[in-house]
Amino acid sequence: MKKIMIFDTTLRDGSQGAGISFSVEDKIKIAKALDVFGIDYIEGGWPGSNPKDELFFAQAKKIGLKNAKLTAFGSTRRKGCGAGEDKSLRAIVASGVKAACIFGKTWDLHVQYALKTTNEENLKMIADSISFLKSKKIEVIYDAEHFFDGYKSNKEYALQTIKAAWDAGASVICLCETNGGMLPSDIQKITGEVKSVFPDMRFGIHTHNDSGCAVANSIMAVEEGCVMVQGTINGLGERCGNANLCSIIPALQIKRDYKCVPAKSLAKLTELSRYVDEIANIVPNDSKPYVGRNAFAHKAGIHVSAIERHSETYEHINPALVGNERRILVSDLSGKSNIMSKACEMALGIDNAAEKACKVIDTVKSMENQGYQYEDADGSFFLLTKKALEDFKPFFKLKSYRVAVEKNTEGKIVSEATVKLEIKGKEEHTVAEGEGPVNALDNCLRKALIDYYPEIKNIVLTDFKVRVINSEANTAAKVRVLIESSDSAKTWGTIGVNENIIDASWQALSDSVEYKLIKKDAHAKRKK
Amino acid sequence: MKKIMIFDTTLRDGSQGAGISFSVEDKIKIAKALDVFGIDYIEGGWPGSNPKDELFFAQAKKIGLKNAKLTAFGSTRRKGCGAGEDKSLRAIVASGVKAACIFGKTWDLHVQYALKTTNEENLKMIADSISFLKSKKIEVIYDAEHFFDGYKSNKEYALQTIKAAWDAGASVICLCETNGGMLPSDIQKITGEVKSVFPDMRFGIHTHNDSGCAVANSIMAVEEGCVMVQGTINGLGERCGNANLCSIIPALQIKRDYKCVPAKSLAKLTELSRYVDEIANIVPNDSKPYVGRNAFAHKAGIHVSAIERHSETYEHINPALVGNERRILVSDLSGKSNIMSKACEMALGIDNAAEKACKVIDTVKSMENQGYQYEDADGSFFLLTKKALEDFKPFFKLKSYRVAVEKNTEGKIVSEATVKLEIKGKEEHTVAEGEGPVNALDNCLRKALIDYYPEIKNIVLTDFKVRVINSEANTAAKVRVLIESSDSAKTWGTIGVNENIIDASWQALSDSVEYKLIKKDAHAKRKK
Repeated sequence: MKKIMIFDTTLRDGSQGAGISFSVEDKIKIAKALDVFGIDYIEGGWPGSNPKDELFFAQAKKIGLKNAKLTAFGSTRRKGCGAGEDKSLRAIVASGVKAACIFGKTWDLHVQYALKTTNEENLKMIADSISFLKSKKIEVIYDAEHFFDGYKSNKEYALQTIKAAWDAGASVICLCETNGGMLPSDIQKITGEVKSVFPDMRFGIHTHNDSGCAVANSIMAVEEGCVMVQGTINGLGERCGNANLCSIIPALQIKRDYKCVPAKSLAKLTELSRYVDEIANIVPNDSKPYVGRNAFAHKAGIHVSAIERHSETYEHINPALVGNERRILVSDLSGKSNIMSKACEMALGIDNAAEKACKVIDTVKSMENQGYQYEDADGSFFLLTKKALEDFKPFFKLKSYRVAVEKNTEGKIVSEATVKLEIKGKEEHTVAEGEGPVNALDNCLRKALIDYYPEIKNIVLTDFKVRVINSEANTAAKVRVLIESSDSAKTWGTIGVNENIIDASWQALSDSVEYKLIKKDAHAKRKK
Repeated sequence: MKKIMIFDTTLRDGSQGAGISFSVEDKIKIAKALDVFGIDYIEGGWPGSNPKDELFFAQAKKIGLKNAKLTAFGSTRRKGCGAGEDKSLRAIVASGVKAACIFGKTWDLHVQYALKTTNEENLKMIADSISFLKSKKIEVIYDAEHFFDGYKSNKEYALQTIKAAWDAGASVICLCETNGGMLPSDIQKITGEVKSVFPDMRFGIHTHNDSGCAVANSIMAVEEGCVMVQGTINGLGERCGNANLCSIIPALQIKRDYKCVPAKSLAKLTELSRYVDEIANIVPNDSKPYVGRNAFAHKAGIHVSAIERHSETYEHINPALVGNERRILVSDLSGKSNIMSKACEMALGIDNAAEKACKVIDTVKSMENQGYQYEDADGSFFLLTKKALEDFKPFFKLKSYRVAVEKNTEGKIVSEATVKLEIKGKEEHTVAEGEGPVNALDNCLRKALIDYYPEIKNIVLTDFKVRVINSEANTAAKVRVLIESSDSAKTWGTIGVNENIIDASWQALSDSVEYKLIKKDAHAKRKK
């Protein structure tokens, strides 16, 4: 197995993605996770460019990475000055890193228009900067910006720039596809040509996803001889993103004979992907290859019945290899086998009686017509099925609620809810305040139930999402509320739909509690 | 320019994506849009499999597509019966289409385990089914399911199956990468080999995105001689999605010398992509190549200043070619040039005075620390800038509000809001009901303002989104509300952040109205 060095730039290029704003603490957390995972180089930021990145390097020194080399980013020196006088290069040295990634110009057009200098001076800027950092005992990876565009425009000069970097002592020449517009056959051809001109140079590849080919282009470059891949977790990055390491690593390591990370790390890939999304506070793209929630989710009835027999039928790899899992989705395309599989997965008591399955399918379809969707709401699906099969005894009954939010002239906001419930034959009328109306309602519901069902105490609401679901959306349109709840053992989703956000939230909140209670009952019964 | 036939399966394979549930009306709308756009084949569904698809074909016949061939999907006949007796094939004939796409087994393993029949019978099933449909004057495209896996497992048999289909009269043999696990060099090698065995066969390509290479694989197959691409708009589809036509069409037509759609259609690509997302009611992925909102969005200060000088610096194509546009993002990575560009774009009166720009940057950073984000909230950004520059006179002042939602014992829900405002020196105290608390608040605000500012009448709220923004999310965490508003001329976004969803909504609602009023004022001033 040939080793491919993985260079992660989530904290630098990835942080330029729209909607991404990492704090220093966020960056430290991600760096630790990448190190444990077995990434070779972690590019932490650009010390010269902003105070946040300088603070990051100061703190990162203290955590002591075990596997990865912490790397600082920067550019070649300014024109017409010595490398030792360049602020950006000095900031790299001051940051105390053992490795740096320096970008320089490949494309003569850019030398002329962006740097406003001569081709010769640019070559000197590259060589000087690398020599300077090497003299400070810092390993230098050279990022040849716009390499492929530059090569197409002026092949000879493009080759001169990387020769200057290599001769000055760069450890890897990384061919950057900065604009992200190349197609795999471009990368194949150009990388192959460059490799044949400089057979002894060590090459890396850095791609962007503007043509939707960043992953393919990176893999192609490795197949043409590159030994380093630069990319980000989940493909975070400016415009359409950088090359997604979560797709590249498993492809090279499972489908080809390369080694990127320790074998045991691969099974932690899904966990890493979700951790970074969580810290970046972005809604995960469920369709992501390998690590997305839907990457092994099956909806079409015909697929589900085949999968049950032979998983290789519709799965390109075993999901466990990357720490992901198979999911069976319930929807109006569902055949009987989806419902049966889902019911089986949830230990719902539908045996092979077609009549019962039909009843559930009919109910699911009718609810979906009203805007409900059960793919993310297994808790509500479970309750719905129980109700459709007339196998459900409610734990409480809502009589009425009232929620009020008031902002007074001093700007103070108070949210108060009252709820009237019937529980085990008794009426409970409770009142509670909260941070907002939904929190007040939740507090009120718990206050009413806690003496009857003390087990609800450890339910924590872990997520709350609201969407308008009509196409002619306005505040009067229907809203769909999805709540995610957890206790110490398990996480479940519940849903509510209504024109009124408060009522939709109520539905999801009460489903969450009822699911917890019914599962506990079932557990108690099994024990007997 | 060589013509590549585009075969869209958004309505069939795309509808199997998680979260997608098209109504018959949705499907008709999308079919019309695809036809106008210039797609060659529109696969509408599987007539034999469910009543919704049958209804779709019945209605689609009436709309009279101008360019596209409406195509029905189905499988080869069952084993051991005549094609004319096969329900699924008869349903295709009954649907009245002029073209059909029939899938059959390529992989001997599947013949044995899934079909439970002999290799010989499978070849007959393929040939019979195609001959039968041809005898009914229906063009047949043959989808060779699992072609690449089948070819790797038993090359000889895989080739026999497509020969059977071609000899029976299929117009195109579509090589299907059903599991989506292949990498571009696999596709290149196998397609090249197959093409050399059958140089006169016409091939298509159908890929899935499980390895993140669906677009690359499709383009590679075309470069190896395929003349048809099957895919979906926005890459909708099961698991990780199908090949995204919105990435493949511009690559082939702009970057290579192929013709997929009429030249003028290309500039409508972004519109088509967003229309389909809207009908599918899914949150658009802003990072989508070519058509995403962020595809040409620039955040890093260094990029923005370069882009201003030479757009080819960080843009692989001119966004206008695909009907998209450049965006400058404002964030804590923003350099001065981002703020200046954004201010310039919005006709905000910041000239090159660095002091003013710094003031705005400081304010933006401080708000971002509190959870605000201005990338989708140009209206709020505009107001923020005006306020930071002390160039803003409020149109009204909130004194207090109160919102109540009550569900009574009959299940009736009433939402009522009261608002006390100071407007032009007078106090207005209004009350209004609404479909939900935010709608009630909106109605109340408008009621108070309408006599003072009649121009607010034509503001329509077109979207409303809520997200919990703390990582330890629960109902008491901070929520971010984003509102999109439109009048007859323009669409703008506003934002609110608070622990309380009602107060966050209030901020976004009042920003929306103030933005409308301030723009109208500016317009009036310019006229003078």
